[in-house]
Amino acid sequence: IHEPHSSLSSLLVDAQGLQNQIDELSAFSDSPAPSVTRVLYTDKDVLARRYVKNLMGLAGLSVREDTVGNIFGRWDGNEPELAAVATGSHIDAIPYSGKYDGVVGVLGAIEAINVLKRSGFKPKRPLEIILFTSEEPTRFGIGCLGSRLLSGSESLANALSKATDSQNISFLDAARSAGYAKDVDDLSSVFLKKGTYSAFVELHIEQGPILEAEGISIGIVTAIAAPASLKVDFEGNGGHAGAVLMPNRNDAGLAAAELALAVEKHVLESGSIDTVGTVGILELHPGAINSIPSKAHIEIDTRDIDEERRNNVVEKIHQSAIRITETRGVKLSEFSIINQDPPALSSEAVIKAMETATRELNLTSKLMISRAYHDSLFMARVSPMGMIFIPCYKGYSHKPEEFASIQDMSNGVKVLALTLAKLSLE
Amino acid sequence: IHEPHSSLSSLLVDAQGLQNQIDELSAFSDSPAPSVTRVLYTDKDVLARRYVKNLMGLAGLSVREDTVGNIFGRWDGNEPELAAVATGSHIDAIPYSGKYDGVVGVLGAIEAINVLKRSGFKPKRPLEIILFTSEEPTRFGIGCLGSRLLSGSESLANALSKATDSQNISFLDAARSAGYAKDVDDLSSVFLKKGTYSAFVELHIEQGPILEAEGISIGIVTAIAAPASLKVDFEGNGGHAGAVLMPNRNDAGLAAAELALAVEKHVLESGSIDTVGTVGILELHPGAINSIPSKAHIEIDTRDIDEERRNNVVEKIHQSAIRITETRGVKLSEFSIINQDPPALSSEAVIKAMETATRELNLTSKLMISRAYHDSLFMARVSPMGMIFIPCYKGYSHKPEEFASIQDMSNGVKVLALTLAKLSLE
Ligand SMILES: [Mn+2]
Ligand SMILES: [Mn+2]
Ligand SMILES: [Mn+2]
Ligand SMILES: [Mn+2]
Repeated sequence: IHEPHSSLSSLLVDAQGLQNQIDELSAFSDSPAPSVTRVLYTDKDVLARRYVKNLMGLAGLSVREDTVGNIFGRWDGNEPELAAVATGSHIDAIPYSGKYDGVVGVLGAIEAINVLKRSGFKPKRPLEIILFTSEEPTRFGIGCLGSRLLSGSESLANALSKATDSQNISFLDAARSAGYAKDVDDLSSVFLKKGTYSAFVELHIEQGPILEAEGISIGIVTAIAAPASLKVDFEGNGGHAGAVLMPNRNDAGLAAAELALAVEKHVLESGSIDTVGTVGILELHPGAINSIPSKAHIEIDTRDIDEERRNNVVEKIHQSAIRITETRGVKLSEFSIINQDPPALSSEAVIKAMETATRELNLTSKLMISRAYHDSLFMARVSPMGMIFIPCYKGYSHKPEEFASIQDMSNGVKVLALTLAKLSLE
Repeated sequence: IHEPHSSLSSLLVDAQGLQNQIDELSAFSDSPAPSVTRVLYTDKDVLARRYVKNLMGLAGLSVREDTVGNIFGRWDGNEPELAAVATGSHIDAIPYSGKYDGVVGVLGAIEAINVLKRSGFKPKRPLEIILFTSEEPTRFGIGCLGSRLLSGSESLANALSKATDSQNISFLDAARSAGYAKDVDDLSSVFLKKGTYSAFVELHIEQGPILEAEGISIGIVTAIAAPASLKVDFEGNGGHAGAVLMPNRNDAGLAAAELALAVEKHVLESGSIDTVGTVGILELHPGAINSIPSKAHIEIDTRDIDEERRNNVVEKIHQSAIRITETRGVKLSEFSIINQDPPALSSEAVIKAMETATRELNLTSKLMISRAYHDSLFMARVSPMGMIFIPCYKGYSHKPEEFASIQDMSNGVKVLALTLAKLSLE
């Protein structure tokens, strides 16, 4: 029988095996390599989920899925009745993105379990890996769908039973086509019971340039920035691009263009480097070169580590949208705040476990803020939470050039394994 | 045997029948009523073409089609070897548009032939109705595709043999799927021989508000405004909407938004009410709420009755695009002028025939400019040309609310019939 601490001092990561799995998983994509497109409940998503469940099984985990497709792989500890220590991330990928975002935290977690098993370690508390459904908002406009439901969001459970995608496919039909939500309309079955987890840790690429630029191996996340998402629709009379004279126009597309530039302006007015805002979606109707846009739809993402400052930007965007309706004679047919979540703080105990693990592994580390949001933002509502960041090439993410080195991933897996081991003994 | 002039003084239009045909044709649509979407060589386009050919046959016309699907319905006159008098328009409809644009000039022309036949009139020159292929640029980005080819555009014939649509379907494959371009790769077979037509007249809704506002029945077009179409692509680095800080961004979407507003500014700077400019297409890549746009594609339409003034706007748009690449650090990966056609003047003889017909029918009329372009713009290169406008509701076009009254269509058909009769005797 091993004494946990001595066996854990030399953790053997199969880093090349992990890289191979990442490459294999990236092939389940609806866009050509090197880009990855893997959208919730599509055929490629279903195949990728099967691939992960198979790896969980090979690692000796018992696998279960909930009604929206959150996948749980469990390793019972010596005291299986205790609250488990959990880790995990997502494998969905926005259109034309890369293969590391989320995936490192799922396949890396399975490898962390394999590392612990190879070392002879036996946990006291159970360890559980979670693959979260739809961290990305691609299909139904809601980010962190799975973790939000796990955290007990009644409003999301209600909204999802009526939600449809851009093809008018309902959330429940889409889930059923992927083998989920059978015989179930009530999504509150997904909610986690209080005290299910004693801690949650997510391993993720930084998605920012700091660790790489400073040559630091591990980022220990102390807080996650607060995101807000907005949907805005303008409507005008449209008409023929040749026949309607300029003074008679109320062009919904130009209204949207003005608002997009106003978003940038209001973000910069905050005066803080931590305030960001993006118009990632801008769609015109009818979308013909010889037709004045009669409708424009835009979606706005704005984030900050300071909730009040971010809410101030949202308010200014709203004022600009109203001002544009007045100057351009368009109608503001929708201005809705899809979500406006508060930031999350990491747990002191989890931070301490990550710091100790990093120190014991002789890795450089840095306390930092996550400017991207993650399933950890919602897991923080039901469990003490922490995140481990590893460097990524130039901070690139959400595009095909996204990259993390084998060495950095290996370091991340070691820190995760050791952190899980420590937390499982507490 | 009738003396032409006396029989033509009472022209009987089956206006309700024409309205029924317009309604029936509008059902061949890929979007729900009241909108119409009928795109080149789609199944709905093929069905609509069959409907029109059937009506041509019922009117006693001999029907032929050329290799790109221009459809010709011919009534041989007493001297069939003479150059024919032609009329016609288009039946394709941009996404979510209406049922009168183009269609009035095709179904109205068939009814004009029926009117002449019912009156006992027999033409000297042959009369020919042309249904032009793809007046709208929807599928391959080229407006007036059929008439441009008929007018002998070598550059278009070459370009089309390589053209593809947004689904990467080649023009020739698309044409073949609709039953055209069999065994033919050389599109120059479409070019009209010199002197094929002694005159061309197109009946069309005004697509502007003037006739309705002034209570005038018929617009006699003296010139068609000169359109230019531009395609512009910006590229930046994209990245994650949360992680990339504002100073590190080069957002292709904001570059496009700025250019769209610059188009409006440069158009207004011309100082002339006749200058118009529109951004009808603006597409972002990857198009996700949490992704900074790495690519933006916009298509610009600008028109004027003064070619030099319009070309000046195009030049200013180009300068703005270049300036935006400097201020935003984006790349201008494409700036191409798809077409930049000169304006066309109507023929004095055709104007005189239309004016005389209108006067004989006791209808009010007005000389006017067409701000929208039409197949007539290209037919003017190979034939004396004229256009007859009728009022339409509020000047609406390219949207479902497009409407022309039965009375106004009936007036237009009468003027067209009498004009064709006069020109056929010259
Ligand atoms: Mn992501
Ligand atoms: Mn992620
Ligand atoms: Mn049109
Ligand atoms: Mn038209």
